[in-house]
Amino acid sequence: MARSSRRRTDHVQPLKLAAETARSRSSFEIYDTTLRDGAQSEDVSFSADDKVLVAQKLDELGVDFIEGGWPGANPKDIEFFRQVKTVPLKHATVVAFGSTRKASNSVKKDPNIQALLAAETGTITIFGKSWPLHVTDALGISLSKNLELIGDSIEYLRSKGRQVFYDAEHFFDGYKMDPDYALATLRRAVEAGAQRIILCDTNGGTMPWEVRDICRSVRQTLDVPLGIHAHNDCEMAVANSIMALETGVRQVQGTINGIGERCGNANLCSILPNLQLKMRQPVLGEGMSRLREVSHFVAEIANLIPDKHQPYVGDAAFAHKGGVHIHAVQKNPATYEHVRPESVGNRQRFLVSDYGGRSGLLAKAEAFGISLDRDHAKVPELVAILKDRENAGYQYEGAEGSFELLVRTALGTHKPSFRLLGFRVIVEQSEGDQGPRSEATVMVQVGQDIEHTAAIGKGPVNALDHALRKALEKFYPELREVRLLDYKVRVLTASQGTDAKVRVLIESGDHKEKWGTVGVSENIMEASWQALADGIEYKLLRRDRPPSDPG
Amino acid sequence: MARSSRRRTDHVQPLKLAAETARSRSSFEIYDTTLRDGAQSEDVSFSADDKVLVAQKLDELGVDFIEGGWPGANPKDIEFFRQVKTVPLKHATVVAFGSTRKASNSVKKDPNIQALLAAETGTITIFGKSWPLHVTDALGISLSKNLELIGDSIEYLRSKGRQVFYDAEHFFDGYKMDPDYALATLRRAVEAGAQRIILCDTNGGTMPWEVRDICRSVRQTLDVPLGIHAHNDCEMAVANSIMALETGVRQVQGTINGIGERCGNANLCSILPNLQLKMRQPVLGEGMSRLREVSHFVAEIANLIPDKHQPYVGDAAFAHKGGVHIHAVQKNPATYEHVRPESVGNRQRFLVSDYGGRSGLLAKAEAFGISLDRDHAKVPELVAILKDRENAGYQYEGAEGSFELLVRTALGTHKPSFRLLGFRVIVEQSEGDQGPRSEATVMVQVGQDIEHTAAIGKGPVNALDHALRKALEKFYPELREVRLLDYKVRVLTASQGTDAKVRVLIESGDHKEKWGTVGVSENIMEASWQALADGIEYKLLRRDRPPSDPG
Repeated sequence: MARSSRRRTDHVQPLKLAAETARSRSSFEIYDTTLRDGAQSEDVSFSADDKVLVAQKLDELGVDFIEGGWPGANPKDIEFFRQVKTVPLKHATVVAFGSTRKASNSVKKDPNIQALLAAETGTITIFGKSWPLHVTDALGISLSKNLELIGDSIEYLRSKGRQVFYDAEHFFDGYKMDPDYALATLRRAVEAGAQRIILCDTNGGTMPWEVRDICRSVRQTLDVPLGIHAHNDCEMAVANSIMALETGVRQVQGTINGIGERCGNANLCSILPNLQLKMRQPVLGEGMSRLREVSHFVAEIANLIPDKHQPYVGDAAFAHKGGVHIHAVQKNPATYEHVRPESVGNRQRFLVSDYGGRSGLLAKAEAFGISLDRDHAKVPELVAILKDRENAGYQYEGAEGSFELLVRTALGTHKPSFRLLGFRVIVEQSEGDQGPRSEATVMVQVGQDIEHTAAIGKGPVNALDHALRKALEKFYPELREVRLLDYKVRVLTASQGTDAKVRVLIESGDHKEKWGTVGVSENIMEASWQALADGIEYKLLRRDRPPSDPG
Repeated sequence: MARSSRRRTDHVQPLKLAAETARSRSSFEIYDTTLRDGAQSEDVSFSADDKVLVAQKLDELGVDFIEGGWPGANPKDIEFFRQVKTVPLKHATVVAFGSTRKASNSVKKDPNIQALLAAETGTITIFGKSWPLHVTDALGISLSKNLELIGDSIEYLRSKGRQVFYDAEHFFDGYKMDPDYALATLRRAVEAGAQRIILCDTNGGTMPWEVRDICRSVRQTLDVPLGIHAHNDCEMAVANSIMALETGVRQVQGTINGIGERCGNANLCSILPNLQLKMRQPVLGEGMSRLREVSHFVAEIANLIPDKHQPYVGDAAFAHKGGVHIHAVQKNPATYEHVRPESVGNRQRFLVSDYGGRSGLLAKAEAFGISLDRDHAKVPELVAILKDRENAGYQYEGAEGSFELLVRTALGTHKPSFRLLGFRVIVEQSEGDQGPRSEATVMVQVGQDIEHTAAIGKGPVNALDHALRKALEKFYPELREVRLLDYKVRVLTASQGTDAKVRVLIESGDHKEKWGTVGVSENIMEASWQALADGIEYKLLRRDRPPSDPG
């Protein structure tokens, strides 16, 4: 992979690297704002830790810029910029975002501007006003004062050695109301040293031909690389972005899965494959085959249910229903598939007959290091079990421990290390208590021995976890080194209230490795039990083998 | 409403009416295929009754054509066409859909063609092949034979007095491979009497400029009104449709909410407002204000969760989260709203979040009818409480109920309807049980009365919900009408195992309205308790007031 040779981005001097990048791939720059504008989406709230994980994924995918947050508006973002400096990124440049100075502050005393500098990124994006309506109605200042704010802020940040990108908020609305003034704001930004001018369709109300015409007219006026930042309020964000790039705009801003305020931002998961697979611009190179993985990762971190019908990366994007389509696709996939699903890390699915089942299972087993012959007698049974499980809501992405246990159990090569005889969990709260008290009892059998014990915990799942370990550590002291690293709950069937099914995903680890396990039930305690028990069973399965030998 | 005077469409002679319609509004024809191509969507399955209900809604909305189904392929659709004849429609024409005859059948003996006639619609749409790849690889016939199938089928249906629309399947792919042949198939259709030629981007892989160029070239060749049928595999279906209309194409085909196979069809809920509100084409007239209602109705019938972020009609389409945005929108909605929400039957919303600050609090309070002056003595305290809560993991987006209770409690204007004295939840499983048994006990005080009761449930939260309602319904019978609509769990702090904090969001509703509540704790039962209790407290708070008067 060509990009693996690039050195880690130095956050304070990214200019040279950004230029290098542009030359080595396509001339387009990919600027991701999932962590800033995406975080404005209703229902999305990233912690600083979440943001660091997402930034690493975006870097692996191959985006050029990662807008990490607005340190002047959100204390959580200050923590993100502190943490991300310690994380090695292969390619991407982390960017801090903020506004031009307030009219009432000098630039040196403006807290937002100072917070941008304190974030210590080499590149800073600041936004300012292009639309007279906003200058007068929202800021309540004069048009010339607004030009001052833009100029002062950019000049000052440039004088501190930063690369500065200027987001022209509401540019298209501004241009339609008063093109001379809108262009004057851009000229002021360029004079002050802005190295990119990003034309923003902040309200998402602009039509593609308007974007095209206005981008062309700006290109004729300004001699600085332009960017496009589109919103999806007319379901035009992807089209508008690509339309702008067609006119010679260099930078495209967007978010993974198109998350963002109101109807979202331009969706990079559609823009990037459109550019690379349709327009032959190698914006990600081989990274494209990780697009689906990154899309699902961000959805998971944001606790959003992935959109099955999402272009390119959704589960239904290459799913065929009905005989005519399936028959034709088997003769020639191009008959009903506009690109190869594998090019974006997706796969073909047939909804009527499970033609892909066996291949899917074998591929999955191989991915988990279980060698399984295509003609093994147990394969059809395993395909059927897996299908039943997936229909019931189990998901083995991120639960390779449960998958391996399932396969080994079906093949008859797994001997359980313990047997559950019963458990009870009690959560109790009385008036005057600080909070509820959680207690669990567990009865397990190991060989001929029966162990019955109890433990308390911060919550019922925590208590059950403690009791199970306490019961088993007597027999398997190595369980003491197992840590529970992550616990996730997802309600599977919306709109059924508290009797909906839940899926629990647990990540466990020891000093050597990590593994995921899964449980599904209408009862959250039962689902948690399944995942906890698998997590321990998996540790015991691997205890005598090095992690690289799953035989 | 201008259209109310139109007489009901006669299904067997729609030609005159269609022309009338075109003159009385815009020159564009709106052709809905929710009930045919939309029904091909994974997870969607309409009954004949469902289809009749949707057809009536579509007629009320004001579409011109309703493609009801494929009677030759789906027996359910035969029933739909039988039923819909008895339903008075004000404006829309119902259309039956099918394929050209099979190569092995004469047109008179082709079951699909005969099923089309038996549906007794005045207008019929049939599709045929434009792409040599499909003719040879999928059908396995010669290119000239394909022209025969097209010609024979259309001529025959025209001879039976039907208006015939011809869907040129895969037209854009066909044109790109062999423009001469692709155009030859259209010419054959026109010679045979087709009254519309619909250019279909069946695989959804075409870019907007390709659509534009190819539509222009077809327009120069053919003298018959054209239509566009786009799919969303590149997230371009809306843009492609509008691009085609811009070149002079008259008919636009699409579905409500963009439902359809793979990534869906062109979304009429975006195309129609783009045409009417952006391009000043009165395609629906006053019907536009029912767009959101129709969108939600179709989602409900299709058993799909409405997409909150859907352009124009989604709950988040006019929702504002950032403090800067809220402040500006209050001064002038045009600052961050590209159209008036009411124009499509939607409404403005303010979300409370850590991005919102004082402006968010005040705007939200105002939305709830709590008059709270910017300089009210309690405001700084409330902002601080809210910030603490949000740092602790509470989130009030989607939890307006808990928000209002929080504000009223801080202002001292809320008197709780009950007091919790204690609860206990027990989950118990023994070997041989089908699954665990969940039981909850609850003790509450209302006035001087104490109620102590118990209930079981499918899981511990469900049991607690049942017990709490059982205890309180005795005092507040109106709680019987409260339904728990949605239950969401999110683990807040990743990488802390089972003692992590969780946030529970609950949506409740009665016959009039819906409300969300939230709870946060290290103990999932405690978090669920908070959200459940708030949900009930909120219902009781509002019981004596109409929803429009939150004072």
